[in-house]
Amino acid sequence: MRKEFEIQGCIEVPPEVTEDEFWNTFIGFVESKGWSFGGGIREIQDGYYILADGSRGRRVLDE
Amino acid sequence: MRKEFEIQGCIEVPPEVTEDEFWNTFIGFVESKGWSFGGGIREIQDGYYILADGSRGRRVLDE
Repeated sequence: MRKEFEIQGCIEVPPEVTEDEFWNTFIGFVESKGWSFGGGIREIQDGYYILADGSRGRRVLDE
Repeated sequence: MRKEFEIQGCIEVPPEVTEDEFWNTFIGFVESKGWSFGGGIREIQDGYYILADGSRGRRVLDE
């Protein structure tokens, strides 16, 4: 039997935590348990998605 | 500035890991970093959501 837990939510971090740091810490945790993650993360600043080029995208709540 | 990372994905675990164990481990990790999580998790077995009463719900891919 294949078991997974779907996660939909947000983790709030201090402003100085970069996306790379967050990703490496999160994946490090998952792998330290022998688990695996499939999916993605998106950075949000003050309620707006941050695009790959660092610019501000749309508001999260406008989805 | 408020910074969050939105997570949308699945973590695959061994079949013996219960939802309570997963939740406690996941939240323990988040809190150990001084971060906080807002959102939810759903259990999936063999591609089907598992309902609160333990029965099998709809297929994940039918969403």
